[in-house]
Amino acid sequence: MPATLARVRRAQEAMRARGVDALFVGPSADLRYLLGYHALPLERLTLLVVPAEGDAALVVPELEAPRAVASGAADLVDVRTWGETEDPFRHVADVVRAAGVADRPVYAVQDRLWSAFTLRLQEAIPADGWVAGTTVMRELRLTKTPEEIAALRRVGRAIDDVHRRVPDLLRPGRTESEVGRDIAELILAEHDEVNFVIVASGPNGASPHHETADRVLTAGDAVVVDIGGTGDGYCSDNTRNYVLGAPPDGYQELHDVLLAAQEAGVASVRPGIAAEEVDAAARAVIEAAGYGEFFVHRTGHGIGVEEHEEPWIVAGNDEPLREGMAFSVEPGIYVPGRYGARIEDIVAVTASGAERLNTVDHDLTVVPTG
Amino acid sequence: MPATLARVRRAQEAMRARGVDALFVGPSADLRYLLGYHALPLERLTLLVVPAEGDAALVVPELEAPRAVASGAADLVDVRTWGETEDPFRHVADVVRAAGVADRPVYAVQDRLWSAFTLRLQEAIPADGWVAGTTVMRELRLTKTPEEIAALRRVGRAIDDVHRRVPDLLRPGRTESEVGRDIAELILAEHDEVNFVIVASGPNGASPHHETADRVLTAGDAVVVDIGGTGDGYCSDNTRNYVLGAPPDGYQELHDVLLAAQEAGVASVRPGIAAEEVDAAARAVIEAAGYGEFFVHRTGHGIGVEEHEEPWIVAGNDEPLREGMAFSVEPGIYVPGRYGARIEDIVAVTASGAERLNTVDHDLTVVPTG
Repeated sequence: MPATLARVRRAQEAMRARGVDALFVGPSADLRYLLGYHALPLERLTLLVVPAEGDAALVVPELEAPRAVASGAADLVDVRTWGETEDPFRHVADVVRAAGVADRPVYAVQDRLWSAFTLRLQEAIPADGWVAGTTVMRELRLTKTPEEIAALRRVGRAIDDVHRRVPDLLRPGRTESEVGRDIAELILAEHDEVNFVIVASGPNGASPHHETADRVLTAGDAVVVDIGGTGDGYCSDNTRNYVLGAPPDGYQELHDVLLAAQEAGVASVRPGIAAEEVDAAARAVIEAAGYGEFFVHRTGHGIGVEEHEEPWIVAGNDEPLREGMAFSVEPGIYVPGRYGARIEDIVAVTASGAERLNTVDHDLTVVPTG
Repeated sequence: MPATLARVRRAQEAMRARGVDALFVGPSADLRYLLGYHALPLERLTLLVVPAEGDAALVVPELEAPRAVASGAADLVDVRTWGETEDPFRHVADVVRAAGVADRPVYAVQDRLWSAFTLRLQEAIPADGWVAGTTVMRELRLTKTPEEIAALRRVGRAIDDVHRRVPDLLRPGRTESEVGRDIAELILAEHDEVNFVIVASGPNGASPHHETADRVLTAGDAVVVDIGGTGDGYCSDNTRNYVLGAPPDGYQELHDVLLAAQEAGVASVRPGIAAEEVDAAARAVIEAAGYGEFFVHRTGHGIGVEEHEEPWIVAGNDEPLREGMAFSVEPGIYVPGRYGARIEDIVAVTASGAERLNTVDHDLTVVPTG
């Protein structure tokens, strides 16, 4: 049985265990995970309908049917195409009816289905309850199989290789955007897709979600480079810090603290501790060094077929870590108006601790300015 | 008053006219349209809350607050940031409560809000009715102001200029993907963002939504090139057809029919006719020539701050055309296993007919193969 049909069966088991009568999955990471079909997010409805018992069906617009079939989805589930002037929700209702769902059903909707579709579903197939798709999907995706960890390991090495070439691209006089475009090409050479490229220089480094801008790199700049792509369906994500010539005042010290914090976070990882303990371990180091107010985000996020997924490594998340979970450990320190730094590795939880899936040098890389 | 706050006020008027008590808008084209804020679609909630009366507020994660403020959104509406461990829906409920909405309210949710957020909203602020955000937004976005048409005209010229350079990129021995990357660079030179690049050669041209693949271009190939980007917030979208050397058997004839069909579609456009009549006008020419079964999609889609938006130019849509509407007229003929062709212009409805916003040569372009 192809791995993907096994995943549909596991989803059905999870639905029966949780009292969910059907699951609806639009174009999303969950659809890729379940069927291997990378559907486009279009205003025309594409929806995988998975009843708790019986056969799943994929409702697709006629126009998309060739892509759906080419993906192999038709080998796994019944594909029902709808024509340009038909109501696709009648097909959805037919599949649900054919599966003979309960009288007062509870339905789960994949988390990222557009509200326009969610509201139409609620109209087309009234139910007693509507729950988030994650109710069904999170357990499947939260811990990875050894094959999935191997895929994350491969893509982790690929992004490490990109970081090794970043120093060649950083030169005073180039803009962040120019550097970003070169990095995107390197990512694409090692992955199937570029997910994001952050090149945050000087004061831009103090904004954790800055992407790239027209700012020109200058000697003495600290540069945060946070990059990721998708290869064979799994995501990479890795952040390192660079300086052009001598580090600005205080930056090496800040980076030393950050490195110790990241080490402490990774060292804390083992099955059974709560996700928030990893956050606390990294944060404690930064707070003790007096930088607490400058660490303005959570310590990490899960990763897999999506670049951001559960488990969230954040205060308040008491989810116990389990072998096979994979997530980022990425503390950051952001000094507004001056500079910022973030060190990020993806780690996989092992039976006794953590395996780092990124191993490229963690130190601050000094790029000679000539 | 900045144009964007005027748009929020117009949305509030539309809400009062339609009995909607509040509108919720997540990261989307509607948010860009209303506030000029290009928010990232993240698992952390960003939500513009617009009550029918009173002041709107933007609920943003702390981490995104600098981007929201930099966008100018804070000059237009109250920005309420929520911290990493807070429940953002309490902020949403507070804004709704402060606006004093009706007892049995009806709420509108922007069409692309993720279901995870939609379901949480339905829990956090129970209502008598939940309607699609388009109920409020469609009238605002359906007809464009003269300034918006001017923006579409500028971006139309930009994509025409890219098409003028496509023949230089098409050579036997290059892959679709290589050509596509070059085209993406040309688009980026003329726009702020690349939206999509379709280079569909030979039999790949028979799949309307093929993007690019590793297929190597060969003398005698027909190539469909459908490209678009975003400039100053407005989208371009233009399709032309090329052949490498002599056209394959029957292709020139097919293209002649298609050109006549596209002309007929554009010629039919004027205020007062139904959107579906444009589809019918183009389709009639293709059917009369015996290619009806190979025209497998609607004739067009509206365009503006989004590349696909209302009005849909499709059978069954009796929406009367109005001055200021802008949409594509893009009939196609797809012969499975052989080749395909599509000719697309964006047109704006004028007082008496249509203005083509793309004017680059519509004929089949023969690229010499040396």
